[in-house]
Formats: sequence, structure tokens, C-alpha cells
Amino acid sequence: MLSAFWGHASAIAIASPIVSIVGFRGDRTTIRRPTYGEMKFVEVVEKQREMPTFPQSFPMNGGDGPHSYIHNSSYQKVAIDGAKERTREAILEKLDLELLNRNSDANILRIADFGCSIGPNTFDVVQNIIDTVKQKHLKKETHIGAPLEFQVCFNDQPNNDFNTLFRTQPLFSRREYLSVGVPGSFHGRVLPRNSLHIGHTSYTLHWLSTIPQHVCDKESPALNKSYIQCNNLVDEVTKAYKIQFKKDIGGFLEARAEELVSGGLMILSGQCLPDGIPKALTWQGVVIDMIGECLMDMAKLGITSKEKIELFSLPTYIPHISEFKANIEQNENFKIETMEEISHPMDYMPLTNDFITSMFRAILNTIIEKHFGDGVVDELFDRLAKKLDKYPINFRRCKKYVNYFIVLKRK
Amino acid sequence: MLSAFWGHASAIAIASPIVSIVGFRGDRTTIRRPTYGEMKFVEVVEKQREMPTFPQSFPMNGGDGPHSYIHNSSYQKVAIDGAKERTREAILEKLDLELLNRNSDANILRIADFGCSIGPNTFDVVQNIIDTVKQKHLKKETHIGAPLEFQVCFNDQPNNDFNTLFRTQPLFSRREYLSVGVPGSFHGRVLPRNSLHIGHTSYTLHWLSTIPQHVCDKESPALNKSYIQCNNLVDEVTKAYKIQFKKDIGGFLEARAEELVSGGLMILSGQCLPDGIPKALTWQGVVIDMIGECLMDMAKLGITSKEKIELFSLPTYIPHISEFKANIEQNENFKIETMEEISHPMDYMPLTNDFITSMFRAILNTIIEKHFGDGVVDELFDRLAKKLDKYPINFRRCKKYVNYFIVLKRK
Repeated sequence: MLSAFWGHASAIAIASPIVSIVGFRGDRTTIRRPTYGEMKFVEVVEKQREMPTFPQSFPMNGGDGPHSYIHNSSYQKVAIDGAKERTREAILEKLDLELLNRNSDANILRIADFGCSIGPNTFDVVQNIIDTVKQKHLKKETHIGAPLEFQVCFNDQPNNDFNTLFRTQPLFSRREYLSVGVPGSFHGRVLPRNSLHIGHTSYTLHWLSTIPQHVCDKESPALNKSYIQCNNLVDEVTKAYKIQFKKDIGGFLEARAEELVSGGLMILSGQCLPDGIPKALTWQGVVIDMIGECLMDMAKLGITSKEKIELFSLPTYIPHISEFKANIEQNENFKIETMEEISHPMDYMPLTNDFITSMFRAILNTIIEKHFGDGVVDELFDRLAKKLDKYPINFRRCKKYVNYFIVLKRK
Repeated sequence: MLSAFWGHASAIAIASPIVSIVGFRGDRTTIRRPTYGEMKFVEVVEKQREMPTFPQSFPMNGGDGPHSYIHNSSYQKVAIDGAKERTREAILEKLDLELLNRNSDANILRIADFGCSIGPNTFDVVQNIIDTVKQKHLKKETHIGAPLEFQVCFNDQPNNDFNTLFRTQPLFSRREYLSVGVPGSFHGRVLPRNSLHIGHTSYTLHWLSTIPQHVCDKESPALNKSYIQCNNLVDEVTKAYKIQFKKDIGGFLEARAEELVSGGLMILSGQCLPDGIPKALTWQGVVIDMIGECLMDMAKLGITSKEKIELFSLPTYIPHISEFKANIEQNENFKIETMEEISHPMDYMPLTNDFITSMFRAILNTIIEKHFGDGVVDELFDRLAKKLDKYPINFRRCKKYVNYFIVLKRK
């Protein structure tokens, strides 16, 4: 799913071919590895803990400038268009409109997009859901007949650029729904109990609530020494990330179970690693490692420092598919209605280096600028573009993520 | 109420002395009038109509810089502190907690602050409401006993600085409520039907949804010729503003009537003119007129142009108290529980010129910058400060606004 993977963006793959989710094992092709030195996590985590409100929240690049997420999320747009039909089917088949009457005396249908970022993709996602519910509502002759009213809850971290979200959303007269911004981490409760009918999240669950504590202990064998991400290569590091991910996905599902009404749906899409494949063998892993290399080159020239790089880490984790499935199944408040693997029309197309650079910049701009300060981002992504030109990614040799589409129903 | 009057801020006066709302007539003391020329409204309105989303929305100055509303709303803070006890009494006496059970199967209590601006005052207002409801909830032995959950809806125009609001609100662990930002004009619906328990608005209803069309017609006797605001001096202009205000307050109450559950409360505070007193006789009117004079001085020096000034107007209107009361009574969905006149501890204290300048700047910064462009605001308020030094306001001679505190119950 390329950079959609990294985005708090609503993106999803098309439904063809659909296969059941079972691990598939790829060969362990050796791919180019970065060469830079050991990473130390202790200080970065300590530093991040000092920040009062949003210790590890790094939203997509805000505003509407040339490097903004708004202007660099076209890949995700393609993915969403591909997922529309799957989402429509899920709502038409699985949603029981009677739950509206059971749970409230008002005909309100509440929809939430968790980790919505700043648009425009989230607007397409919610419009598709609303159109489908309306179609279903009109068909249903036995329904109470009162006008159905939609409220959309756009959720993301409090430092997401909600101003841009609000200023770019469709005009009220054209959008047929009331909207609210819901600032807060989706790893915990953000909406009242028993108030939500349809929840949605796309390509967000790989963001951890924090860098795992175990990998931040200098004395621990779990200290992640070599990379700016978890790449499933060092067992202790992987284990620490696994524990944190399990905790976070558990927190996410527990919160949604409280917020959703009985019968409400939670639609999840995102990416996993095929069982047995480390992240380092995916092309996304290669790009992130290249970014690490570029930073090290810049440290050698004094543009940044090795110490700063050693304190830098990405709070993200891609689980293996069977691991992810087990985590989902652990929450007994949900019935799994759909769990499918889907592919994306661009999965087998090589992407241009410019496209890759712009997309990763839109996603990582905030986190890099926050850590390294002003002026580093331009230089870094200029260097990434040059490095990609010098060492083009061999997409055919890289392993691909598994794209999942999951529908859960609140019992 | 000084600049609190101009703010989308939550501000309210203390409860002493409390008198019933009846018009009182003051003498028509002559005060200094501005000298600049005719205003033309046609083009400004046409221009504003071209803007796609928020034609006449000018929020308080955002961010947290030295001229921000955040750092220039201390006067309003004093007012809120004074109003806390009145609000507490209203909730303890008038709110029926059983409405929670009648309207939903979840123990959610929703509170909305309409025209909340960016804080910090709105946080104090909602905390006071929540503390009071909790106190009442704990006292009520017969209550169902399920944990009560609070959701606060912070409403303001979509171009309000919600980013600052979200980033400065109390940490979740300390605030005991879930929060959402609700972007939209409170002259229409912003929340679902039958979903709100306590609505609140302070010193916001003088903002019109638009400059009245009647005063924008060059051929009309209602063309507001001389001033940048409605000052109740020209009959046709006053009539046009009256019509617009009636429409807007009607739209506000109609929307709240739909949003509030039966038994829900709407708490309003703000300012009116005493019956028979034109705005020009209040010190706030004098300051606004001075701002107009400063602009004309700048036009003479070529810093701005007379044409630009003629196209400038403030979409605000202060009704007379009996007029306001009649507008409120017209909506038959509400029972008037409380309608009182209150005063403010600073009503009889002269304010310093620096204080006045900073406060008006925080409130008018956005609207002035939007119309006149960059660089004018600094110069304008430097000049206002100097003019105030040269012609100090004679607070004793100026007429005072009537500060109202109103509690409505949804039938």
C-alpha cells in the first residue's frame, strides 16, 4: 500500500483479488541495508515524555502548501476509490438500521473516522458511508420514517490540523451531515458510551501510542540498536514492539466497544506483513532505511548530528497477519463479520521516485521537523530523491504488505 | 461590559445588583462624534458574498501571541468568575436530571458553548457547569446510578482557531469530559436533533450572520452613510439592523430548540442598550468611532484608502433591552425561567487606554486584517492608543450597556 501505510489517511485497496487471510511466506531475498550506526532510544523517549500533551503524536503535514498531505495523498485517493464498493457491501449486508430505534429516541446516525487526518480522503470515505446508509434507509419500508440525521465525528490527535480540516470540508448545504472534530488519541475513549453507529479507520493502526519502553533501556537486550524503526530483525526489539502493539490495538478495540451501540459496525483497513517476512524486505522498509542513511550523510557534513539521529525513532509497528488476527479476536465484544485480504491497483506498478519522495515527506514532515528542527526537512528529502535516483528500488524483488479489510459488529 | 461585548468570548457579569429587566432611559448627553465621511456597504457585501464558506465570520485573534485573544481576555475572565454563581444556581434549581433517562439509554450529558472562541474562558465556563451537574447528580438519590459521562461541544465558526482551542484545553486526565469541536454558524443547526442537555452562550448574539441587505443599497434611504457600525442614530439603518437581528436571534433560538432535549436548558448572557439610548452614547461606541477616525487619518496619509474604509463595516448589532426581550419571547418552544439584569465589577471603574487598545485589537484584528490587508493593524492600534491618550474617554458621562442573564427551558 506504499505510503498509504504511513498515513493517518483513509486509504484502502480494491477488492480484487479477494483471498482469505492466511499467512503466505515469501522467500528471504536479500535487499540493500543501510549502513549507519546504533540508535539509542532512552533520551528520545525521555524527551518526548516531557512534552505535556501529545508525547508521540505526529500528524500528517498540515495546511495546503506544496508539501501538505492534502496535495500529496492522491495514492490514498486511488485506494479509497477501490475500497468504496467493499464498504458499501459491508454496510448493506451487515448494518441493522433497527439499532437506531433501540438505542435512542432520535433518528441520529453517528459515523466516526478514527485517525482522519486533514482530508480530502476522509470526506470521500464518510460520504460513501452516508450514501449507502441512505440507500438502505430508503429501501427499508418498515422503518419508522422520521428523517434520518447524520453526524460525522472526525477524530485525530489534538495536534492534527483541524483548522484545515474544517475549512476544506464540503459546504454544509452540499454535505448533508453535521460534523464535529474529535481531538484525542484513538487508543483510548474519545466519544461517549453507546453513541456511535459506524466506526471507520484506514491505515492508522500501525501508529503506536508510544515507543515501547523495552527498547529504550540502554541495559536491555531489547535496545533497538541499528534502525529508526522496528524492522522485525532483532528478536528482543520485535518482542517489545509486539507487546506495545498488542496493548495499543487492545486499547483501540476496547474503546470502540464502549463507544459503539450494540449492532454497530467497525470497519478497519490497513496493512500487515505476510507471516515470516521482516519489514526490511518490503520496499517501504527500504525507503525508511534510506531516509536514515540520508540523515547519517547529513550528520557527517555537520547539517545535523549523529547524537540527534540516535535519539530519533518512529513509533510505528507493522504486525504479521496472523498476529494481527489474533489481536483482533482477543476482544470478545465483537463478532468478526468480514476479514479479507485485498490488493491495490498500484501494488504491481513501480512508483516514480518523485512520487515516493513527496508522499513520504507529507507523512514524515512533522515528526522530522519536530525532532531535527527547521531546515533539515528540505535537505533530507532532496537527498532522498537523489539516493532513490542512484539506487532505484527494485519493486519486483521487494516483498509486499498484506492489505486487510475487516468488518466487526458490536455484540 | 466593555470589550467583552465584542468578543465571541464567554463572559458574564456578576449578580449584584440584580434588577428585573425593564427599560431605563438615560439622558441624551452629547458626546464626541467622529468626523469622517460616508460609508458605502454595497461593495463590501458583494465582496464578502463571493467568499465561499464563511462570508461574514471574523473570529477572535487566534494563536497565543502577544495580541492573541488568549492573552487579552482577562476582562472577560473577571466577568465569568462573577457569573459562576448565577449559572450554578440556575442549574441546581432548573435542571431536571431525569431528562437524561427520558431521552437516551446512555448516561450522557451534553453541554455546548456556542461561539466559544479559543479559550481559556470557555474552559472555565464548562467546568463550572460540569461541577454543578455532578454535585446535583450526587445529591440525587433516586438516580439510576450509572456513571454520568460528559461531552462538551465547543462551537464556533469554521474559521475559528480550533487548533489552539484543542491544544490548550486541559489534559484529558484532568478535565473529566470528552470534547468535540463543532464548526458552524450558530444561527443555524450545528448539532443533531434532541441531543443537547445544556446550551450556553456569552456575549455572542450581537454578531450578525450578515450585514443587513437594506443598508447595502445605494439607492435606499437605509444606506448607512456615516459610520462603521450601527449606532441607532439613523432610523432607516436602525430598522434594517433590527430586521437582521430579529432574523438571526430567531434562527439561533429555532436551532437550539431543535437541538435541546425536552427539559434542557439554554443559558444566555450578553448586552443590550437601555431603551431609548443610542449606541453612540456608550463608551464602546466612542471607541469604535475613534477606530474609524484613525482609519481616516491613515487614508489621508496614503497608508490605506478612503475607498477601502467606505467598504468596511462591522456585522454587529446591539438591540435595546425591550426589543431583545420581545425577540426571545417570540419562540414558543422555550419557557423563560430567568431574565435578569446584572452588573459587572468593572462597570464603574475607568479602564486604562492600554487595556482598551489591547482588548479591541484582540477582537477586531481578524476582521481588520482581512479587509485592509497586512501591516494596517499595528499602525491602526498605535494610533488608537495615541488618540485615547489625547482624548481620554469620560466614563462617567457615557451610558452603560444593560448586561442580561437569561435561562430558557426547552418545553
